[in-house]
Amino acid sequence: MKILVINAGSSSLKYQLYDMTDESVLAKGLVERIGMDSSILTHKPTNKEEYTEVSEILEHTTAIRKVLNVLTDAEHGVISSTSEIQAVGHRVVHGGEIFKQSAVVTPEAKSEIRRLFDLAPLHNPASMMGIKAAELNMPDVPQVVVFDTSFHQTMPEKAYMYAIPRVLYNKYKVRRYGAHGTSHDFVSKEAAKFLGRPLEDLKIITCHIGNGGSVTAVQGGLSVDTSMGMTPLEGLMMGTRSGDLDPAIVPYVMNKEELTVNEVNSMLNKHSGLLAISGISSDMREITEGMEKGEANSTLAFEMYEYRLRKYIGSYAAAMNGVDVIAFTAGVGENSIVLRKRVLEQLTFLGIELDESLNAIRSGEPRRITTANSKVEVLIIPTNEELVIARDTFRLVQ
Amino acid sequence: MKILVINAGSSSLKYQLYDMTDESVLAKGLVERIGMDSSILTHKPTNKEEYTEVSEILEHTTAIRKVLNVLTDAEHGVISSTSEIQAVGHRVVHGGEIFKQSAVVTPEAKSEIRRLFDLAPLHNPASMMGIKAAELNMPDVPQVVVFDTSFHQTMPEKAYMYAIPRVLYNKYKVRRYGAHGTSHDFVSKEAAKFLGRPLEDLKIITCHIGNGGSVTAVQGGLSVDTSMGMTPLEGLMMGTRSGDLDPAIVPYVMNKEELTVNEVNSMLNKHSGLLAISGISSDMREITEGMEKGEANSTLAFEMYEYRLRKYIGSYAAAMNGVDVIAFTAGVGENSIVLRKRVLEQLTFLGIELDESLNAIRSGEPRRITTANSKVEVLIIPTNEELVIARDTFRLVQ
Repeated sequence: MKILVINAGSSSLKYQLYDMTDESVLAKGLVERIGMDSSILTHKPTNKEEYTEVSEILEHTTAIRKVLNVLTDAEHGVISSTSEIQAVGHRVVHGGEIFKQSAVVTPEAKSEIRRLFDLAPLHNPASMMGIKAAELNMPDVPQVVVFDTSFHQTMPEKAYMYAIPRVLYNKYKVRRYGAHGTSHDFVSKEAAKFLGRPLEDLKIITCHIGNGGSVTAVQGGLSVDTSMGMTPLEGLMMGTRSGDLDPAIVPYVMNKEELTVNEVNSMLNKHSGLLAISGISSDMREITEGMEKGEANSTLAFEMYEYRLRKYIGSYAAAMNGVDVIAFTAGVGENSIVLRKRVLEQLTFLGIELDESLNAIRSGEPRRITTANSKVEVLIIPTNEELVIARDTFRLVQ
Repeated sequence: MKILVINAGSSSLKYQLYDMTDESVLAKGLVERIGMDSSILTHKPTNKEEYTEVSEILEHTTAIRKVLNVLTDAEHGVISSTSEIQAVGHRVVHGGEIFKQSAVVTPEAKSEIRRLFDLAPLHNPASMMGIKAAELNMPDVPQVVVFDTSFHQTMPEKAYMYAIPRVLYNKYKVRRYGAHGTSHDFVSKEAAKFLGRPLEDLKIITCHIGNGGSVTAVQGGLSVDTSMGMTPLEGLMMGTRSGDLDPAIVPYVMNKEELTVNEVNSMLNKHSGLLAISGISSDMREITEGMEKGEANSTLAFEMYEYRLRKYIGSYAAAMNGVDVIAFTAGVGENSIVLRKRVLEQLTFLGIELDESLNAIRSGEPRRITTANSKVEVLIIPTNEELVIARDTFRLVQ
């Protein structure tokens, strides 16, 4: 079965075409600048040259038609007809409390996703555009929605409730939902597989650290706590997001600087984090370079980022009364040798013994970076959210 | 030397008179309902009967005059003349970045405290009323100010900075200050003394848990991190305060419920925490009773409170790469057998071995509640913030 995985943003659309007989990727690509007159389609068929096309793409339906055209193109394509695509899997950011797992798209599912626009005003409307566009282009193909939040629906009440008036939960469903669920799910399963140990027996802390970032406590295969909250603002310090903050600072700053609700949200989500402290970049690679040159602001940005991540690891070890495995994933987690080193060499009280030479190896494969004596196994597990979406879609449409 | 310790609130004033030759308390008391026509003075001289007086006390100067009268009263007093009082020590909540330690009151010190009104709008103006009232009543007696924040001024930049635009630090000094500093200071020193070990060698986590609450990581006698932030709202779940929260919830709720800055502050500080979740009380004793009766809301309130405290302990163990001592203090910390039990029995991964019989003893003395085999010493250290104020005052006026 061939499955098309779609991740739609408000002005972009990423895709991957999977052949589920061997879970191989036939092609992947990206449409950018949707809504402008010079949209760009970048298409990479496996074992063929990358192909780029600039044209006017005003909305998502046209974007998906372009993708289907290039997938079936004589020169750049990988399939002979769109009828080979037997299902479409969509990434959706927010599934609220309704979607405890992935679901086949039905009229009811769509109205539930619409009801969640309020909790994810930037993301869910874009996902919905992707779903509608796929339906219009492939009316007879089943569609599946896979949520960033579903994996965290196993959190206990004590972890997901905030200590604020209950009316806010009852009326607006204000609670912790978390994000990157497909990644934390995938990485924890892969970690157990790599170790050859039953997932049910393991206490795993998964650190998904990219431009956004979250840490999850996975006990017996279930998410029991995660650092992102009702929105992706809470938790770790990120590229441009503040992460944890005295909540009283929000009204204080709104008052002092005469900011609106939108302005303060924009400040905390887009102009904070590594960018605000370093003054130069939201990218950990540039922060690390700055630190290595002895730049004070980049050094502080790095130290805050490392320190806050390390504290979350300690916090989740306490949440589960122990930790067997720590798994790093995503851009920073997979690639920053120095970040992992700094975090782990200050967690020796957990019995962690880093193998510096293993930590310094760059590779796209799952691997261990601790010594044989280490009481906690620390792994690098490259994440693959698209594969989780493809697998869930495959399972649901069979 | 006799020292009067004063803790002034906006409509109340607590006092203790110390004889510093043996650090004994000669009398203590409280003036309540200042500004109303039926203010109440409750005076407890050591070894004498408690005395209560109801009268009109419209402001703090009169309150202190009443206190001096009763201290020198033939029947209820403990000194023969106010001239025996050789110094006054004031508790002040916020010392900002200026007051890294206690200070003698000078015109400059007063204008600095006034400059900090903005960071502690509810507390510092009340402290200032207490200082002025004491000066008017005892113009020739030196006054000392002791700050809740000073002990935390040793925090490193990575712990006290928030990951938000730096202009907010530069313009308004938005950063983490913490609170309960005199208590965390006292308790960490007493813990080392109790164990007969040098404070310099110890990693201590002090848990000051009363109606408000904060946890501090004390390394080598210095505060290196603390859970309260720019304001006392951040950190642990408390009696009526939310503690940590996705900061995005603040603008979200303001928008949905059309709340002003003051209203949302009031919601998070006065109508959240244990009270909001239990629906019955902000008092841990009543929450525990509710839980023991099987009440779902009280059980959840207790579980959230315990879980969040436990996560902070894990987080600070990671901050210091280990922990030698955990010290509980203040109302809940000293008295809640069940809270300490639940926290500690889920921290066995740190090598903690609770002695349940020691934990069940009620006493006002410093004591150990772990077994001889425990890798972490867990202590109960009754706090004494007034004594710290008296000692600092004594040291500074000598």
